[in-house]
Amino acid sequence: MITKKYDVIVVGAGHAGCEAAAAAANLGSSTLLITMNMQTIGQMSCNPAMGGIAKGQIVREIDALGGLSGIIADKSAIQFKMLNLSKGPAMWSPRTQNDRMLFAHEWRMALESIANLDFFQDMVKELIIENNTVKGVVTAMGIRIEADSVVLTNGTFLNGLIHIGEKQFGGGRMGEPRAFGITEQLTSIGFDAGRMKTGTPPRVDGRSLDYSKMEEQKGDEIPGKFSYLHTKPLTKQRSCHITYTNETVHEILKEGFDRSPMFNGTIQSLGPRYCPSIEDKINRFAERTRHQLFVEPEGWDTIEIYVNGFSSSLPEEVQLKAMRHIPGFENVKFFRPGYAIEYDYFPPTQLSHTLETKLVSNLFFAGQINGTTGYEEAAGQGIMAGINAHLKVHGKEPFQLTRDQAYIGVLIDDLITKGTEEPYRMFTSRAEYRLLLRQDNADIRLTQLSYNLGLASAERMQQTENKLRLSNELENYLRETSLKPGTINPILESIESSPVDQAYRASHFLTRPFMKLSILEAIPQIREVTSQYSKEIQEQAEINIKYKGYIDKERENVAKLQRMESIKIPADFDFQKITSLSSEAKTKLSQIKPETIAQAARVSGVSPADINVLLIYLGR
Amino acid sequence: MITKKYDVIVVGAGHAGCEAAAAAANLGSSTLLITMNMQTIGQMSCNPAMGGIAKGQIVREIDALGGLSGIIADKSAIQFKMLNLSKGPAMWSPRTQNDRMLFAHEWRMALESIANLDFFQDMVKELIIENNTVKGVVTAMGIRIEADSVVLTNGTFLNGLIHIGEKQFGGGRMGEPRAFGITEQLTSIGFDAGRMKTGTPPRVDGRSLDYSKMEEQKGDEIPGKFSYLHTKPLTKQRSCHITYTNETVHEILKEGFDRSPMFNGTIQSLGPRYCPSIEDKINRFAERTRHQLFVEPEGWDTIEIYVNGFSSSLPEEVQLKAMRHIPGFENVKFFRPGYAIEYDYFPPTQLSHTLETKLVSNLFFAGQINGTTGYEEAAGQGIMAGINAHLKVHGKEPFQLTRDQAYIGVLIDDLITKGTEEPYRMFTSRAEYRLLLRQDNADIRLTQLSYNLGLASAERMQQTENKLRLSNELENYLRETSLKPGTINPILESIESSPVDQAYRASHFLTRPFMKLSILEAIPQIREVTSQYSKEIQEQAEINIKYKGYIDKERENVAKLQRMESIKIPADFDFQKITSLSSEAKTKLSQIKPETIAQAARVSGVSPADINVLLIYLGR
Repeated sequence: MITKKYDVIVVGAGHAGCEAAAAAANLGSSTLLITMNMQTIGQMSCNPAMGGIAKGQIVREIDALGGLSGIIADKSAIQFKMLNLSKGPAMWSPRTQNDRMLFAHEWRMALESIANLDFFQDMVKELIIENNTVKGVVTAMGIRIEADSVVLTNGTFLNGLIHIGEKQFGGGRMGEPRAFGITEQLTSIGFDAGRMKTGTPPRVDGRSLDYSKMEEQKGDEIPGKFSYLHTKPLTKQRSCHITYTNETVHEILKEGFDRSPMFNGTIQSLGPRYCPSIEDKINRFAERTRHQLFVEPEGWDTIEIYVNGFSSSLPEEVQLKAMRHIPGFENVKFFRPGYAIEYDYFPPTQLSHTLETKLVSNLFFAGQINGTTGYEEAAGQGIMAGINAHLKVHGKEPFQLTRDQAYIGVLIDDLITKGTEEPYRMFTSRAEYRLLLRQDNADIRLTQLSYNLGLASAERMQQTENKLRLSNELENYLRETSLKPGTINPILESIESSPVDQAYRASHFLTRPFMKLSILEAIPQIREVTSQYSKEIQEQAEINIKYKGYIDKERENVAKLQRMESIKIPADFDFQKITSLSSEAKTKLSQIKPETIAQAARVSGVSPADINVLLIYLGR
Repeated sequence: MITKKYDVIVVGAGHAGCEAAAAAANLGSSTLLITMNMQTIGQMSCNPAMGGIAKGQIVREIDALGGLSGIIADKSAIQFKMLNLSKGPAMWSPRTQNDRMLFAHEWRMALESIANLDFFQDMVKELIIENNTVKGVVTAMGIRIEADSVVLTNGTFLNGLIHIGEKQFGGGRMGEPRAFGITEQLTSIGFDAGRMKTGTPPRVDGRSLDYSKMEEQKGDEIPGKFSYLHTKPLTKQRSCHITYTNETVHEILKEGFDRSPMFNGTIQSLGPRYCPSIEDKINRFAERTRHQLFVEPEGWDTIEIYVNGFSSSLPEEVQLKAMRHIPGFENVKFFRPGYAIEYDYFPPTQLSHTLETKLVSNLFFAGQINGTTGYEEAAGQGIMAGINAHLKVHGKEPFQLTRDQAYIGVLIDDLITKGTEEPYRMFTSRAEYRLLLRQDNADIRLTQLSYNLGLASAERMQQTENKLRLSNELENYLRETSLKPGTINPILESIESSPVDQAYRASHFLTRPFMKLSILEAIPQIREVTSQYSKEIQEQAEINIKYKGYIDKERENVAKLQRMESIKIPADFDFQKITSLSSEAKTKLSQIKPETIAQAARVSGVSPADINVLLIYLGR
């Protein structure tokens, strides 16, 4: 034995693996992180950015839970933008552009500082499984390493196959070897595996671009950040740029379609619907004469540029020829062309809510291996898998997040209940309670839960409690403070809102359209109080008042659902025996093995009638 | 065509490739650097250090020529040490410990800032060769890129095969794919290729070491630097540590010998004699009861540690078991075990002095592909190959350095004249004029030559001229200034040197053993003048005076040899026709095709009698 026996082994050091390893080790598990290359820990395989719509909320949730993605994104950020500020607060979504090399460096430094976390560079090609329980791993070097649990986060590396036009070659990412062995072993013992596809655009030489022909996209004037802890907001930022394809570009790309692995049948597996290749966009949205491209710098100083929106697996000369007709890209030089990659995944209906596999105890999956796409989705699964691997090997209760607690809860519930046949990406529309799941309140939603587990630090808990206390204090003040017509009417007039003829509480006015706390602050009496609170506290109190009606309504719906969630279905429940269930329900429920009536209700093909049958059968 | 046609393509972005690309591009050639992975440009594959004995001189020479290795080593240094200060100035050798990640980052940033240099990420698997002239490359993606010349710097990647105990797997470095195709193509057209072997020690977790059981090795109190330009010396440094193997360690390692690929016949190729594996050291120096290990940090902050001196390809559990008996390593944790790697090289007698191949015009080789070992040796060849590739495609005279001008001259002359059957490493003993080839005067030796080519900058030239002028000025002052017995005798007594009874020049006293300029500075008259000069100028003047006798003697020898160097042998000279040559000389000379009589004399197996025959035949 070259190493000791570990509590938790994490295989893969991408977003999922890094979060899983950090969580398990920080909770106190002796943890080993195994990666094929210690130089590529924390790589951003695709675009150099974190967050965005619904994804930014996940990063905030990971941070609230004591994960590291938010801190590392802040430390390596080159630009910050809060997206969707013109919409309601449920839609506000933080996003950073990041320095790719710095991001990886910060991850490595952060992981190195965790006492219980060890590292090993090798490829895992086999799991040690005894009595349907994982007992460790065997590496390509032939080294056996024992552990009480294993978290697999293999990303696109399992049997990775890269496509460019008619050419194919094995690889986990361009320039890196692929991994093999695990899929073959797991399918041999009954796991269902599939293939998915993703793609990446060309990387180009920024010196060859003419930015004067593009629109500059600056970061926010007052940049925010992901972490609720004391990371520093940016004091300088680097701009992105926007440009567009056009019909000439589309025509040129179409010339290559018969050589496209996407269209000539070479690639059968499905790619991410909401992050399609440029050829896919042209094909599916034939009526559109242009598509937006987001030109992202790869770091503070580097000349390397990521052409977001131009993902392609067309022959490289077609990619280049077409790109040269994009404004600003007339003289573009490639560092490397875009490519597609196919890889193995395991349909996630084979997992329980803890991300443990149903077939093999103590084996957890997180990230692209579960059919998801996106750094944030991966990291969110990673922290949950790491937490639950730790809890399992220490005989503790599992930790789950519900759909009303977190996007991470929505993500995992969707995956294990509905499965996915194409790369799953998070959207705000996937969350039925998205007004509860805001980026501003992830700490209030989650930090206490994580603190109870021993993951979120006392400092983080203290900070959350302060935030809650102060925002309640300010909210109460605004709910208790009357504003007389003479005071408030001039302000109402200024936003074209009807004047009042008697005094109302300040909170009353905040619920009106276009009214903001910052507008009310024109009243010295209000300003005197609000100015004692930070921007974050003001925002929290304002949202709580302004959206109280909607929030209360969502909470009611949650309560209803919780009753269904509380009705557990035994793990060994035999749906086939219940003759009055529809045959589709029998099949799907036997396959998914929902843990509660609420989850059963979300399984596609299960009708309300089927649920009633189940409720009767379970004695409700 | 996905790219334009280039003047120079450089394949590989290690030390050789980076220097070659920088030199060609800075000279004005449109240059393309092709690397399998743009994230691994400028990787230190082995230990995190630059320079050392004879190697530090090469780094200084590269810097004097306008190369970048010195600047990058300075910028990423975590420790500086001038080795051999107790010996004469010919032996003084600068060395830095470096932050591995920072070193790679600085290389990438430096290369990105060169206007004529483009980048492409791909594997070159074929050369385009027409009429015995290289015309470009074909990549694994199937992309043809045309160029007027190609520099191959493939390192250990050509058919790289990694060995650990009885296990073998393909790879260019651990965790990185190998390259293939080039060897097969070149041997098919008549190139001779061989296999070499090198190795690397385990990387370990610094948190698992007990430094209190080792000897601390600090950097110099007043750290120097490599570059003659204005890089900043270190203001803080990180220590290395020294520990030793012992007989228990050796016994444990021996237990694994029957499973060692080195001893059981699996590896037939030769490794670096002067950087042997630990098993090789135990085997070859059986009488020694311990071997020194140099424990090197991998960077400013990282916990990763390089165990220099413990290179091994024994089974990993044997490496670990043995290492745990080394003081300070009782609880060591591996990040990865040591391993050996076999790779293809091309015996360098197939090259001319410019590093161009004799069989294929405009094709240049540099680095490990020529059978050398060491970052500095690679970088030194790289800059020369880059310069000569540029000169060749622009129809200019080739640029060579002679054995009396530079270690780089010795290196290349040794390689192409004598060849090498084991990885060639530079030593001061390989240089017959090493008193001329000092680390302190590389700029004086080389900058003018490079400035004439257009590579060294005007700033660098100016600085060298200033140094020469000021040191001559100070030297002249010391040669002209008389010191009377009353002034000098107390000082002579203090260093136990015989007193004088008449006045002598200051320079006279400097030639005495133990006398130093810093000692003469006790005389206010001297100090008043010397203090107007920098430390560097003082040192230069002092060396010129103190070692004048030896230096003049070496210059005489050089002059003699130059007469031989000036006698050229035509490229198409047919040695076989000269019946009076010994048959060994005929064979060797036909193979090596020496360009001058002096070079012919250095070919092994060629006797002085053979040289006389040649001289007669050539009409001398």
